Amino acid sequence: MYTEIHMPKGFKCAGIAAGIKPAGVKDMALILSETPASAAGVFTTNQVCAAPVKVCRAHLEHGVARAIVMNSGVANACTGAEGMVAAKDMAAETAKAIGCEPQEIFVCSTGKIGPQLPLDKIISGVGTLLDSARGESVQDTAEAMMTTDTRPKVATAEFQIEGVAAKIVGFAKGAGMIEPNMATMLSYITTDAAVRRPALQSALKKAVDQSFNRISIDGDQSTNDTVLALANGAAGVEPLDENSTDWKAFESALESVCFELAMMIVHDGEGADKFVTVNVKNAATDADAELAARAVANSMLNKTAWAGTHPDWGRIMDSIGYSKAKVVEEKVDIFYDAVQAVAGGCRSGVAHEDLIKVVSQTDFAINIDLRQGDGAATVYTCNCTEAYVRINY
Amino acid sequence: MYTEIHMPKGFKCAGIAAGIKPAGVKDMALILSETPASAAGVFTTNQVCAAPVKVCRAHLEHGVARAIVMNSGVANACTGAEGMVAAKDMAAETAKAIGCEPQEIFVCSTGKIGPQLPLDKIISGVGTLLDSARGESVQDTAEAMMTTDTRPKVATAEFQIEGVAAKIVGFAKGAGMIEPNMATMLSYITTDAAVRRPALQSALKKAVDQSFNRISIDGDQSTNDTVLALANGAAGVEPLDENSTDWKAFESALESVCFELAMMIVHDGEGADKFVTVNVKNAATDADAELAARAVANSMLNKTAWAGTHPDWGRIMDSIGYSKAKVVEEKVDIFYDAVQAVAGGCRSGVAHEDLIKVVSQTDFAINIDLRQGDGAATVYTCNCTEAYVRINY
Repeated sequence: MYTEIHMPKGFKCAGIAAGIKPAGVKDMALILSETPASAAGVFTTNQVCAAPVKVCRAHLEHGVARAIVMNSGVANACTGAEGMVAAKDMAAETAKAIGCEPQEIFVCSTGKIGPQLPLDKIISGVGTLLDSARGESVQDTAEAMMTTDTRPKVATAEFQIEGVAAKIVGFAKGAGMIEPNMATMLSYITTDAAVRRPALQSALKKAVDQSFNRISIDGDQSTNDTVLALANGAAGVEPLDENSTDWKAFESALESVCFELAMMIVHDGEGADKFVTVNVKNAATDADAELAARAVANSMLNKTAWAGTHPDWGRIMDSIGYSKAKVVEEKVDIFYDAVQAVAGGCRSGVAHEDLIKVVSQTDFAINIDLRQGDGAATVYTCNCTEAYVRINY
Repeated sequence: MYTEIHMPKGFKCAGIAAGIKPAGVKDMALILSETPASAAGVFTTNQVCAAPVKVCRAHLEHGVARAIVMNSGVANACTGAEGMVAAKDMAAETAKAIGCEPQEIFVCSTGKIGPQLPLDKIISGVGTLLDSARGESVQDTAEAMMTTDTRPKVATAEFQIEGVAAKIVGFAKGAGMIEPNMATMLSYITTDAAVRRPALQSALKKAVDQSFNRISIDGDQSTNDTVLALANGAAGVEPLDENSTDWKAFESALESVCFELAMMIVHDGEGADKFVTVNVKNAATDADAELAARAVANSMLNKTAWAGTHPDWGRIMDSIGYSKAKVVEEKVDIFYDAVQAVAGGCRSGVAHEDLIKVVSQTDFAINIDLRQGDGAATVYTCNCTEAYVRINY
């Protein structure tokens, strides 16, 4: 429960049931800055993208945000001109209620692709959200973002800028359709530090690449992925950029919040009950290491083997072999945690039981040494159980 | 049952239990030509490949084959120098027993990656295979090739060369780890037509590209994929090549056998109970069409939706969007069989029940029109059920 967490200074939030989902389940959230905040955003690379993503991209040109308003239950993706009108109306109605420009409102939707937004419920929801927005409503807000998530996801960090206390509070949702480039995930990062917009954008991009873009659940990318960062400066210090003395303090706080949220998403992978870290080292290049790590992390045969508590290292050899990374079979070493399974491309002398012990854990690492160069990469993933299939039926 | 099928003239075959698998299950097969046959082969593109694949590639340089000897249960992959010695010994012992050069023997293994071949069982199995080889042992041979297959796979075609009757008998195995480039599948094509080696090789490559390379079960590629074609000329006609009058008759017989075997593999997909044809047309190029079709066919979210009898066309839009094919959302039309689900990137007016009727069938097509050009491609796939996960635990 995140009931003890307060928003950064000058931010309020809310999460309510607007009637989009059945049975009174929370389905709309608001994050509101009392003053205009610098805004940064990173979005899905899918060629098919949701109307709210298109609206966010356009509004980001403006670079200033007052609020993020979102709904769960309906994705407003593949909804054509009508969907674009609905996303714009969602922003315009929120702007009118707050008293700001529509470009200062960022809108997000997540849920089923295809249906149109129930705009009447959304508009009446916006009013309720504004009425109930508080600095303490972190738990409600995170709950309203959930779809197949089993738990809300919030992470925080505190840091000092010129001796003044500042903080970050970040939210995320996402439990399936997760692959490179942040499929079906939303994350909102708020801070009361003041950050210049280009610096905020580049810091966010960097943090996302090392966190949300390093996780893989099922290899599917989504139409709605959005990470937004709002920095409102309410902590009362001079605007930061890369040349500021305390830039590193902000940057590492941002990275730690994004990383923590990304790890929460993998831990909450649809139907998953094991968290697996895939480390590849000594690849020809970092890019090669990432290709090999992603091939291992995305393989259904690896994910099902982990679910069955089978240390089936042959499937790992197979995956790196068909990845586009340079692999010389005879040079490959593979460790399950610290237990060596493969030496020079062949079975090591280790007892099978010792490997079973490792994959019986709920959290373990596959460590792969390609002995080709000094490239390295890590990808975080989970197992695939029968429950994954049931959830996605 | 394939008990009525006879091998082409001059071929014998056998399938026996050599004790590699437990409980007397058949685990070794032989295909024997009474005279030297032209040989062609297509192999896995995985950088990690099994010892028998390396041996086959080397022997194919010689271009003449007397026999294929194979075992199931152990893949002889990731077995290092010891595995190479075993694969070569398997060929040498067979050659000695037949009385031919080792290069005229092709060896294959399929099953678990990692363990070494039980060479004593293999060698004694070769003797039993030769003793029991008959023109009528097609069923036994196909059974001995099986791993997670639920049924043996054989296809035949008859054709005329210069008025003389000739035939093809083809065998295949493979039920999981199937993706582009023929993962964990083996296929042996035998014909009593005489075919010049370069023509046989190019015809086989072309047939494989349109059959085994168009199927997808789980997106994993294997270390052991092998398709071999043997043409022994026992039908008694002049050797064929692309310039022969009856070349087309041979070529289409070969293509029909490969296609039929490939369809059997998808129908026998691990845990699958629905066969899905993904057609993409009017893509910018044929290559683009293939990228889009493969993205749809490989998506776990599509495969689980089909298993759940959900016409979730939003996931199809999502898949083509993240494929590398050029997609303009507003131009996409999607049909389930002949029922239009998506018109111009949005939901069509069709009743949801009509789409459910289509995905309730055990065999249906997803027809995608990208309206970008005149490229087209088809990929054959299956659904993903909880049974897939259980099989691969």
